[in-house]
Amino acid sequence: MQPSPAEIKQVFNTVSLPATAVEHIGSKFAKIELVKDDVLITANDIVTTQYYVLTGCLRTFYLAPNGKEHTLQFAINDWWISDYTAYFEGSRAIMTIEVIEACTLLKITKANLDRLYEEFPVLEAFFRKKLEKAFASFQKRILANLALPAKERYLQFMHTYPNIEQHVKNYHIASYLGITTESLSRIRKELANT
Amino acid sequence: MQPSPAEIKQVFNTVSLPATAVEHIGSKFAKIELVKDDVLITANDIVTTQYYVLTGCLRTFYLAPNGKEHTLQFAINDWWISDYTAYFEGSRAIMTIEVIEACTLLKITKANLDRLYEEFPVLEAFFRKKLEKAFASFQKRILANLALPAKERYLQFMHTYPNIEQHVKNYHIASYLGITTESLSRIRKELANT
Repeated sequence: MQPSPAEIKQVFNTVSLPATAVEHIGSKFAKIELVKDDVLITANDIVTTQYYVLTGCLRTFYLAPNGKEHTLQFAINDWWISDYTAYFEGSRAIMTIEVIEACTLLKITKANLDRLYEEFPVLEAFFRKKLEKAFASFQKRILANLALPAKERYLQFMHTYPNIEQHVKNYHIASYLGITTESLSRIRKELANT
Repeated sequence: MQPSPAEIKQVFNTVSLPATAVEHIGSKFAKIELVKDDVLITANDIVTTQYYVLTGCLRTFYLAPNGKEHTLQFAINDWWISDYTAYFEGSRAIMTIEVIEACTLLKITKANLDRLYEEFPVLEAFFRKKLEKAFASFQKRILANLALPAKERYLQFMHTYPNIEQHVKNYHIASYLGITTESLSRIRKELANT
């Protein structure tokens, strides 16, 4: 299924594109629909595609050899998602991406996106700026993991993903913060009482 | 001091640039020399500049209110360094960057780099790819912090920064890994005995 011109304009909402460009860019994307518990990427997959979330909610996690899940990222409306290490490096996925709430995604392959960069340098600038934001957000998260107590990390998480609590399970959030669900409950009670 | 054409070619070593472009790009950089213990960026500075390391070694750290230092990054030959959250977002630095070994840096302001992107789209692609690599490396580090024991994180650190151990102090490495210097010593002993 092809995305509509309105959907492409939504993806590149900070970029001014003529109608012919929107049509051409749209022809490089495909629109897909997934239901809850579908798996978008499985560890060890070759990853050549990234995804833009129109609606729904997904979760990227690492399944450790001991069976424990470690949540790296959530993605909701207007986020991009993939196993970016694999996507950028042309290596195999170490992450799994699962659908938490039924979603509609736009997908594009790296090969197609690289061609679009050449045809429309303005898209290269668009993605460079997206990457800068993602990089800054990852830098904050690394620092928080090193320097902040769990309560502060939880508040930072709520700031990064406003309104996400209704979509995800407690153990998803706990595994994002690197704490137990019991610690998460304790933090929430503390915050409710302040 | 202005960088030489050879130095500019070294910075952009994957890009083919005509001599006139090299000269023009070089005019937007300044070359600076710093000695051990100099401070490049102090927390709360307005950050408008990023730096390319020609020689030497620097460390980015966060000084917590309790006086503890948390090391986010090291930079050696051929790395870029800045407080990127502040640089990208136009906000104030939360990091401090100090010189660990005397260094020669090339500096460029964001305003100048943005202009170069417009003049030479190939530079935009160059930095987009650099960002992709940095993003993937940060993703690995977040995952390691969540999922890997300290010994594995130490091995990953040694892989990211080969030969850096001779340049940095034990407490720098420990504060990068989020462990005590005693734990670091124990890990090294374990690895030496295997």
